[in-house]
Amino acid sequence: MADKKRVCIVGSGNWGSAIAKIVGYNANRLDQFDSLVTMYVYEEMIDGRKLTEIINQDHENVKYLPGHKLPANVVAVPNLIDAAKDADILIFVVPHQFIKRQCEELKGKIKPNAVGLSLIKGFDQAEGGGIDLISHIIKRILNIDVFVLMGANLAGEVADEKFCETTIGCKCVKFAPLLKDLIETDNFKVSVVDDVDTVEICGALKNIVACGAGFADGMGLGDNTKSAIIRLGLTEMIKFAQTFYNSSKLSTFYESCGVADLITTCYGGRNRKVSEAFVKTGKSIEQLEKEMLNGQKLQGPITALEVNYMLKSKNMEDEFPLFTSVHKICSGAIKPDAFIEQLRKHPEHK
Amino acid sequence: MADKKRVCIVGSGNWGSAIAKIVGYNANRLDQFDSLVTMYVYEEMIDGRKLTEIINQDHENVKYLPGHKLPANVVAVPNLIDAAKDADILIFVVPHQFIKRQCEELKGKIKPNAVGLSLIKGFDQAEGGGIDLISHIIKRILNIDVFVLMGANLAGEVADEKFCETTIGCKCVKFAPLLKDLIETDNFKVSVVDDVDTVEICGALKNIVACGAGFADGMGLGDNTKSAIIRLGLTEMIKFAQTFYNSSKLSTFYESCGVADLITTCYGGRNRKVSEAFVKTGKSIEQLEKEMLNGQKLQGPITALEVNYMLKSKNMEDEFPLFTSVHKICSGAIKPDAFIEQLRKHPEHK
Repeated sequence: MADKKRVCIVGSGNWGSAIAKIVGYNANRLDQFDSLVTMYVYEEMIDGRKLTEIINQDHENVKYLPGHKLPANVVAVPNLIDAAKDADILIFVVPHQFIKRQCEELKGKIKPNAVGLSLIKGFDQAEGGGIDLISHIIKRILNIDVFVLMGANLAGEVADEKFCETTIGCKCVKFAPLLKDLIETDNFKVSVVDDVDTVEICGALKNIVACGAGFADGMGLGDNTKSAIIRLGLTEMIKFAQTFYNSSKLSTFYESCGVADLITTCYGGRNRKVSEAFVKTGKSIEQLEKEMLNGQKLQGPITALEVNYMLKSKNMEDEFPLFTSVHKICSGAIKPDAFIEQLRKHPEHK
Repeated sequence: MADKKRVCIVGSGNWGSAIAKIVGYNANRLDQFDSLVTMYVYEEMIDGRKLTEIINQDHENVKYLPGHKLPANVVAVPNLIDAAKDADILIFVVPHQFIKRQCEELKGKIKPNAVGLSLIKGFDQAEGGGIDLISHIIKRILNIDVFVLMGANLAGEVADEKFCETTIGCKCVKFAPLLKDLIETDNFKVSVVDDVDTVEICGALKNIVACGAGFADGMGLGDNTKSAIIRLGLTEMIKFAQTFYNSSKLSTFYESCGVADLITTCYGGRNRKVSEAFVKTGKSIEQLEKEMLNGQKLQGPITALEVNYMLKSKNMEDEFPLFTSVHKICSGAIKPDAFIEQLRKHPEHK
């Protein structure tokens, strides 16, 4: 490797800060990386101090990952272009509604041979209907190669250095080992696969399934039913990827980004939790977002809506009864207690 | 179909009684089956009455499935040969240590063109080392075709008619639809695959993984770690099947017998529960079997021992670090807190 690769983390939320702990640690100890890691931080004031100042002086993101020290070589930068302009590897980890605007801002201001690594889960709506993958959006706007990282990675547990795995989707034989080195630690084990789109699709679709798992929990349906829902969800994830992204490989779903992330999300994630409350309280998703998520949007219902838009336009709703009924339940078109009835018609049992 | 098929259930434990509810219901309503379903019941006295008498008069297995009515067309028979001799379909659902003796007893006494359906989970040790599948044992002794049924089917929840799925492994195009009809209800959905051995292997190996999941729970390691363990366990299940049973298909592991049963077992099963207690209390597995299972043997540690015997003889322990370390922990050779260290060396992350 001729020169040391510089890394920039675009984003500093809970997951961005957890990954900054890992990336900072590895960039500091490994020869192939510049030890300086920049982290773009949306500036805000916390008790009269700037968040970037707190991070750079106290080495803690007190707002989004309190209680965890960030490595001193991770430097918070409040200007997106300043943070990114010298980077060889750009790690994108912002809420997905911001990504287009930020890429537009970065356009023409980054190294032309930089690569992106997207940790952003969820789809974007394509113009004219259908679905856009976030990595495709970044690639299109910035004209760089974009890889993805997804896995069973609840941010708090990663920050706590509990053992887990993740999956990097990377087609490039030069960057695959470099990205693995940058991300892997003793407690954060990386597998690299070349099936990039499937890795990303798993990260979005699992949230729909988690809503279904949450409905089952809310109705008190037990372990058999819940694992049937998870499995039927997995079969729809596979079918979706194979129908709309025909290079998709069955083996990718056995990676951390597939079955493992699905399990974690269906047991520990917030889509499950809010969906359980949805059944138990009878309140709307919007109301629960206010009460349980400080007004943040829940990903599962949005993704279910986007997927439904696509399935409906292709007259394929019946082939994806779980995705379809989760959307109908979240949007109030049918009641949660109709969920299992929808699954009884599943094409899997034909 | 020329004549109505007669069904016999060999076994009347918790799972046998739950499946008797379903089979009795379907045999009674579907033309292709004789409505009489015999159930071989090991005779015992309950409060001064014979268990067969209680079942035949009160239609409830008060010992093994209390609180659930069995259909009146399910008739308990205390003599194995009487129960089985006229059956076209023999459903085997006894503890696996009894199966050889019972097959020897049935040898030459059943219809020559009968078929078997094994619901028995776990391996048997082959003579001269290695592993024997239960369905192979039945087939060998009785000289009949034997199919299998495995899935995410905690017996109590099946008896409660909670929605779930199951997998039948059946190579025979004639019997596959017949078995599906016999087993499927609105709340117990059946998929049939032809990869019989893999279906059965899943049912045995998942218990090893569940011990690993239980260790993680006992150590309080969180959702990411637990799903990493489940996923690594799944990869070892796949590798085991593909190494030793070369017809094994990747798609079979996505069936209820694969990923769904694995999830149910790793969250709701007793192997998980006892393994958690093993870590938390420091007591031996034997001691916990006495305290938590009325002295019944836990399947996971036995299967781990059998699998280890096979792997060791082939010098392949390092290729299956999860199976190997579960065995070593259960047998006391290493401490549970060494478990994660073993997984860090997993060939999956090479």
